[in-house]
Amino acid sequence: MSVSVRVEAALEALLGEAQSNATPPLLASAVRYCVFPGGARVRPSLCLAVAEACGDEAPGLADAAAAAVEFLHCASLVHDDLPCFDDADSRRGKPSVHRIYGEPLAVLTGDALIVLAFDVLGSAATTRPERLAPLIRTLAQGVGMPSGIVAGQAWESEPVIDVAKYHQSKTGALFVAATRMGAIAAGASPAPWSLLGEKLGAAYQAADDLMDAVSSEGEGDKPIGQDARLHRPNLVAELGVQGALHRLQDLVGEAVAAIPDCEGAQGLRDMVRAQAMRLTPKHLARSAA
Amino acid sequence: MSVSVRVEAALEALLGEAQSNATPPLLASAVRYCVFPGGARVRPSLCLAVAEACGDEAPGLADAAAAAVEFLHCASLVHDDLPCFDDADSRRGKPSVHRIYGEPLAVLTGDALIVLAFDVLGSAATTRPERLAPLIRTLAQGVGMPSGIVAGQAWESEPVIDVAKYHQSKTGALFVAATRMGAIAAGASPAPWSLLGEKLGAAYQAADDLMDAVSSEGEGDKPIGQDARLHRPNLVAELGVQGALHRLQDLVGEAVAAIPDCEGAQGLRDMVRAQAMRLTPKHLARSAA
Repeated sequence: MSVSVRVEAALEALLGEAQSNATPPLLASAVRYCVFPGGARVRPSLCLAVAEACGDEAPGLADAAAAAVEFLHCASLVHDDLPCFDDADSRRGKPSVHRIYGEPLAVLTGDALIVLAFDVLGSAATTRPERLAPLIRTLAQGVGMPSGIVAGQAWESEPVIDVAKYHQSKTGALFVAATRMGAIAAGASPAPWSLLGEKLGAAYQAADDLMDAVSSEGEGDKPIGQDARLHRPNLVAELGVQGALHRLQDLVGEAVAAIPDCEGAQGLRDMVRAQAMRLTPKHLARSAA
Repeated sequence: MSVSVRVEAALEALLGEAQSNATPPLLASAVRYCVFPGGARVRPSLCLAVAEACGDEAPGLADAAAAAVEFLHCASLVHDDLPCFDDADSRRGKPSVHRIYGEPLAVLTGDALIVLAFDVLGSAATTRPERLAPLIRTLAQGVGMPSGIVAGQAWESEPVIDVAKYHQSKTGALFVAATRMGAIAAGASPAPWSLLGEKLGAAYQAADDLMDAVSSEGEGDKPIGQDARLHRPNLVAELGVQGALHRLQDLVGEAVAAIPDCEGAQGLRDMVRAQAMRLTPKHLARSAA
C-alpha cells in the first residue's frame, strides 16, 4: 500500500471510530468536512514514511501517529481561517469551515480535532504502552506551548515578532513532531530524525511563501497574497523570488542529506524530492529545472 | 495538605513547567490569566478527593490528572465566552480573556490549554506507563466527540436540541472524567466511580441553572440571566424555582449515596454536601435549611 493510500485509510478509520451516532450531527459533519478531502497530506505521509524506514514494527500505532499529526494540522487550519485570524473564505479549494457551518462550529471542530489527535494515540498504544508517553509529549511539543504551532500563531499577536521562532513554531514544529513520532511508533530512537523534520519544515515554509507571493490563483490550496495583506513575514519580501527559490532548493538538499542511514533511506530521499517539486510554483520549477 | 491547596499547587507547578521563556509573552500571560485565580475548582478537587479515597498511591499522577481536568475546564470557559458563543464580558469576577487579550489570543489560549492537559498526563505517567492510555482516553471521552463538553457545546448549534444529551455532555461528562481519572491515577478501577461523577455533574448543572435564574449579580462567578437571553435550556424554566431546588437536593443525595465503600468515603460525603451548599443561591439555601 502506498503511503498516501495508507494515510487516507487511517484517517477514515480513526475518524469513523470516534464519530458514533451520538455525535451532534452538524459537528460530525463539520469535522469530516474539515478533514476530507485533504491537501497534500505532507505531514502524515512523512510520519508514515519515517515509520516504514524504521521497520514499521507496530503499523497500527504508526497509523495513529500519522492521523494525530494530520488531525492537529486540520485543527490549526480551521482555527487559522476564523474571522479573528485570516478571515479566509476558502481552504483546499472549497469554502472554509466557518463559511459553511458558522463560527461556533468552526471553533468546536478545531477543539474536537485536537482532542481526537490525543485520543487516537491513547487508543492505539495498548500493545506498546511504553511508547505512548513519548508520542503524547512529542505531539504536544509540536503543537502547544512554548514553541508548537499554537505558539507560532500567537507570535502574530506580539508587538515584536521573532521571525525565526515564528516560522520554526508555526510550521517547523509539526514537521519535527511528524518525523519523530514516525520513529517512536516504530520503536526507533527519535533523535536522528529531528533534523529532517526541521529542514523539511523550513523548506515547506519557503515553498509556501513563494506560492503565496508568485503563484497563480487556483494553483495552491489556499488564496494567494495573504501574507502581504496581513503584514506577515514572507521570504520573498525578504530575499526576492530568485533568492527565495534558491533558499528552497538549499533546504531540500539539506533535508535529503539529513535522512539517517537506514534501509528505507532511498525511498525517503525520492519522496522528499518529489514533494519539493510539487510544492514549487510551476513556472519557477520549470525555470529552475 | 487540603485538597484545594493541593489543586492550586499542582496547577501552578504544571503550568510553570510548560511556560518557558520561549513562550510568546502575551500567550503566556493570557493562559495564566485564564487559569488564575480560579473559580471553585470543583472538578480537580473532586478528582484529587477520589484519588485520596482510593489510597493516592501515585500522587504526582493524581496531581496531573486533576490539573488536566481543570485546564480543559478553563479551555472550555475561554472558548465559550468568545463573541461567537456567549459573548461574555466577564468571567470569574473579572473581564473575560478576549476582552483583555483580544479574540485571536483567546482562541489560542483555549487551544494551548487543551494540548497542555494531555501533555501533563504524558509527562507525569513515566513511572506508571500502563495508566496513561486509560487516563488519556477517559479525558478525551469527557471532552471530545461523541459526548464530551465540545459535543455538549455543539448541541447549541443543532436545530433540535436533545436536552438530556446536551447537559450530560456539556457538564456531566467532565465530572465523570474527574472521578474516573482520580481512581485510575491511584491504580483503582474507575467503573465504581462513574455514577458519583454523573450525579454530581447533574447536581452542578441544576445549581448552575438556579444560580443563572435567581441569584443576585455578583453572587456567582459569571453573569446571570444568560440562559434566557441565549434561549438555552434551563431547569428553572422547566420546573420552577422550587422544583429545580428539589431536583438539586435529590441529586446531591443520590451523589452521596453513589460514593463507593472505601476508606475515604466519609470525607468525600462531607465534601459533596459542602459543595452543594456552596453552589445553592444563598437565599434558597437558607429557606431550604
